[in-house]
Amino acid sequence: MKIALAQINTTVGDIGGNTERILRNIDRARGEGAALVVFPELTVFGYPPKDLLLRRDLVSANVAAITRIADHCRDITAVVGYVGPDPPGTPRRAGVGKPVSPFGAGTGVFNAAVVCRDGKILGDYAKMLLPTYDVFDESRYFNAGPETGVVSIPEGKGGEGLSVGLSICEDLWNDHQFDGRSVYNVDPIALSVEAGARLLVNLSASPYRAGAQRHREELFSSQIREHGVPLIYVNQVGGNDDLLFDGASLAIDAQGTVVARAKAFTEDFLVVDMQEPSADRQADSASSTGFTGRIEPYPERIDGVHRALVLGVRDYLRKCGFSSAVIGLSGGIDSAVTGALAVEALGADSVHGVAMPSRYSSDHSVEDAKRLAQNLGIRFSLVPIESAHQAMEKLLAPEFTNGASWQRAVAEENVQARIRGNILMALSNESGSLLLTTGNKSELAVGYCTLYGDMCGGLAVLSDVPKTVVYDLARHINASSGRDVIPQRTITKEPSAELKPDQCDQDTLPPYDVLDSILERYVEREESIDEIVEQGFDRDMVSRIAKMVDRNEYKRKQAAIGLKVTTRAFGTGRRMPIAAKFHP
Amino acid sequence: MKIALAQINTTVGDIGGNTERILRNIDRARGEGAALVVFPELTVFGYPPKDLLLRRDLVSANVAAITRIADHCRDITAVVGYVGPDPPGTPRRAGVGKPVSPFGAGTGVFNAAVVCRDGKILGDYAKMLLPTYDVFDESRYFNAGPETGVVSIPEGKGGEGLSVGLSICEDLWNDHQFDGRSVYNVDPIALSVEAGARLLVNLSASPYRAGAQRHREELFSSQIREHGVPLIYVNQVGGNDDLLFDGASLAIDAQGTVVARAKAFTEDFLVVDMQEPSADRQADSASSTGFTGRIEPYPERIDGVHRALVLGVRDYLRKCGFSSAVIGLSGGIDSAVTGALAVEALGADSVHGVAMPSRYSSDHSVEDAKRLAQNLGIRFSLVPIESAHQAMEKLLAPEFTNGASWQRAVAEENVQARIRGNILMALSNESGSLLLTTGNKSELAVGYCTLYGDMCGGLAVLSDVPKTVVYDLARHINASSGRDVIPQRTITKEPSAELKPDQCDQDTLPPYDVLDSILERYVEREESIDEIVEQGFDRDMVSRIAKMVDRNEYKRKQAAIGLKVTTRAFGTGRRMPIAAKFHP
Repeated sequence: MKIALAQINTTVGDIGGNTERILRNIDRARGEGAALVVFPELTVFGYPPKDLLLRRDLVSANVAAITRIADHCRDITAVVGYVGPDPPGTPRRAGVGKPVSPFGAGTGVFNAAVVCRDGKILGDYAKMLLPTYDVFDESRYFNAGPETGVVSIPEGKGGEGLSVGLSICEDLWNDHQFDGRSVYNVDPIALSVEAGARLLVNLSASPYRAGAQRHREELFSSQIREHGVPLIYVNQVGGNDDLLFDGASLAIDAQGTVVARAKAFTEDFLVVDMQEPSADRQADSASSTGFTGRIEPYPERIDGVHRALVLGVRDYLRKCGFSSAVIGLSGGIDSAVTGALAVEALGADSVHGVAMPSRYSSDHSVEDAKRLAQNLGIRFSLVPIESAHQAMEKLLAPEFTNGASWQRAVAEENVQARIRGNILMALSNESGSLLLTTGNKSELAVGYCTLYGDMCGGLAVLSDVPKTVVYDLARHINASSGRDVIPQRTITKEPSAELKPDQCDQDTLPPYDVLDSILERYVEREESIDEIVEQGFDRDMVSRIAKMVDRNEYKRKQAAIGLKVTTRAFGTGRRMPIAAKFHP
Repeated sequence: MKIALAQINTTVGDIGGNTERILRNIDRARGEGAALVVFPELTVFGYPPKDLLLRRDLVSANVAAITRIADHCRDITAVVGYVGPDPPGTPRRAGVGKPVSPFGAGTGVFNAAVVCRDGKILGDYAKMLLPTYDVFDESRYFNAGPETGVVSIPEGKGGEGLSVGLSICEDLWNDHQFDGRSVYNVDPIALSVEAGARLLVNLSASPYRAGAQRHREELFSSQIREHGVPLIYVNQVGGNDDLLFDGASLAIDAQGTVVARAKAFTEDFLVVDMQEPSADRQADSASSTGFTGRIEPYPERIDGVHRALVLGVRDYLRKCGFSSAVIGLSGGIDSAVTGALAVEALGADSVHGVAMPSRYSSDHSVEDAKRLAQNLGIRFSLVPIESAHQAMEKLLAPEFTNGASWQRAVAEENVQARIRGNILMALSNESGSLLLTTGNKSELAVGYCTLYGDMCGGLAVLSDVPKTVVYDLARHINASSGRDVIPQRTITKEPSAELKPDQCDQDTLPPYDVLDSILERYVEREESIDEIVEQGFDRDMVSRIAKMVDRNEYKRKQAAIGLKVTTRAFGTGRRMPIAAKFHP
């Protein structure tokens, strides 16, 4: 029996477009002789739908789409994700969406999967485990599904029914533990197997983070070994705002071996052949069911970050209706890497680099920016800011009467960054290009950036990439392109904001390797100052960095959306108060 | 028996400061002869704690504070809210916080209340109903409490024990319905009464919104009438980021009558005397229990909005460590109202108004701004932007080569707004004052504002106030101060952004009364275009406005925190995707 894994890139809320994509993939699956085609989580609506789930008209349209999809499933079975207005098992009333309640748990809608064939709904299922942590808010919207979903599907022309156990993303992640116990008090996979499932099908929208795929495969394999039932896992691919879905859908045989893997970071259509156990072996054990299929490699760590970011830039612009980008080029490493990623995502003709030197800029800054633009083959503009800088200084001088000298110095540095932000936004407005902002995670963490200055932009490409990893990315980009796209001097020179004479980052920050080590512990792992100091770091330094992180929440509140590549990014997955006092 | 309602203003995360405030109020209650003192929800930690709940060190400190508070409760009983590391009923291990899991439901901590007396914990309770909608994320952090909490407390010297039924905020809000059924499948109040509670005590952190208090009192009264048991409701007061807690704590007698009400929008300490039913009446019915206490008036609608905003400005600055504000004054209504509110919140000496006319500014703009500043008695600066504007135009002219003429026009308008943003931020940086941004909800909804321009600032005072209500506020401010603090011309003239010659808002926007009516339906009530049109609005206009709202989500993503005064504000309670396609 052939099974198609339709790893597609949907757009959130685009019910019409997503449905068309689903129909095309059903046709393709039928054409390739598949008896079953499986789609990702919430295929019709796109993931994460967020407060669009409160729009009754969109939920109704999503329900109506299921009727259309079911009608399209002639001689093939499709498993599709959608927003279910009714508890599973309820007779379908396609096109009639119930009103959606804003109160989430205890009411509302379901994160559901439906099995369609020949105009009928063979069965359905609602997600039982609703992640509500980090970037996930599913308890805000969904009712938890009340029961397991094992659906008998035809195995082909006249074949016997195959009992398929449906699950959705988190249902498969039973490793979330606390104090040695699973955090969930129900295991939907075990329930499916108990209920007679001979094949497990999981619809996912599982976001990328460095190291996630290895964890997924180990976890899924260990579960499958426990149950002896094979798994088809179909993951969404594509960037939706901050979240980057990496695809890499899987078929895992009954022994827990990955026997097929779809491509990562791109749409893919993977057909696997499931060898049913023969009748006598079936009596012996269900565990002999196996697959054949192709196995695409999953990118190594830094290559994964690289591809994730390119996908994120491409999809954010495309799904927002932009086709070109503008970037401020400082000659430094962050803007160089951002520029290289943008060119990969959009093409050299669609990227405009702008150098905006001030009186404090070194010669090499402009040279390096220009060299980068040449290497990338992008349009380059040189817009020195001196005249605007002088005009601003004259306007402000009579008003600078209150502050201490350090405050005046900060104000004067920021004025330059904000003139640059103004120029870049003007170019963005005039040309209809999106401004990409270039700051990295380390800077954003400690507030080493100017709000409304270098923080201007619609997408913060590197805001979840620590500075040390930005260097890794630069070297990886050069290595993988076989030449120094990013000028060597950009990689080797001392980093500087160049907002005052002879400034360098390490005047005010610790070395980036130390900074990043402390930030990983404080921000990603939520460790306390004491815990970090116990690991051998200097208390004063840890305390100073922690204070900088805490105090700069207000800047991050107004930061552009950033592409999430670590376990814990600034943004929707980290919700800190601002008017608060919590620094020990 | 005297009961004290300690309606205090805590700071999120400030375990030490909040504990001191609790201890002082316990002393005061004892001094006034109270047998019981009740505090608001999560008193020790402050509400909403957000991801600070993932900080193990803070949770531990919050647990240790309970020991200190219990030791302080000599000859008095206190009910205090805190983050409970253990399920209720678990023997206390004060100072030993369990590790906090990031997975919320099924693990984690409890939103708990503890009854302390003479160094002991008499009993505890964990919130059973966890709101997870709008601005609330409680399922992200808390386990739901497993059982009712009825605790016997001494009624005074040698008195019999009084059975007190504990509940926390949402536990009392059983009117959340969907499809005619309660959204929650448990009623903690009914359970308490069944378990023998003779007094209900509710610890709340219930945010203000226009009309909320009337709804609260009707809801609570109807519940009390049903159960015949009196209620003490203690609500937090103060601004915490976007949320404004209005206090107005209540005592409701067994007949459902409000017999005491604390002040709104300020700390208060309200002592009520509960008349216990005599022995023979007790046999007859428990419903005869009554209170005596003072009843403070709750402000009328526009007065409530006014006071809420003043409190929000004052607390945001104070809790962020600022004591002064800078505001751009355009001569228009929004900046005038913002200025007046800031002066009330901070004092005239702490507010700096800056007019920044451009070549397109009318004479009356500067005059009206100056007049306002005089009326308010604040420092006023005039910083014409022409020189910086010219410098920017010269820099940009050679680069404006791509766009259509309308794009160039938009770019040229925004440049001016961003020069002003740069000036205001420079003054903020130099003086250590917080920049208040002045845009209203109607503008923010349709994107009639410049990102990094007039949107610059740490707090958006009016961003949840529709333009029509801004006018109401202006008239109310003048009426309540008995003179035209806000110049009449500012109220009567046609609103204009003055970014090009002879511009006025209604060139591109419908009249504000129509706009606000449509926005209320589209944004606050999540109605579809069809539903709004059915109410008599023009389809083209509704569709155009809806499209503007949808398209400008990217600006709101980077907006300053705004003070929430309506049912549904932009910000943490409205979570929309950006890279999405959902406009019908």
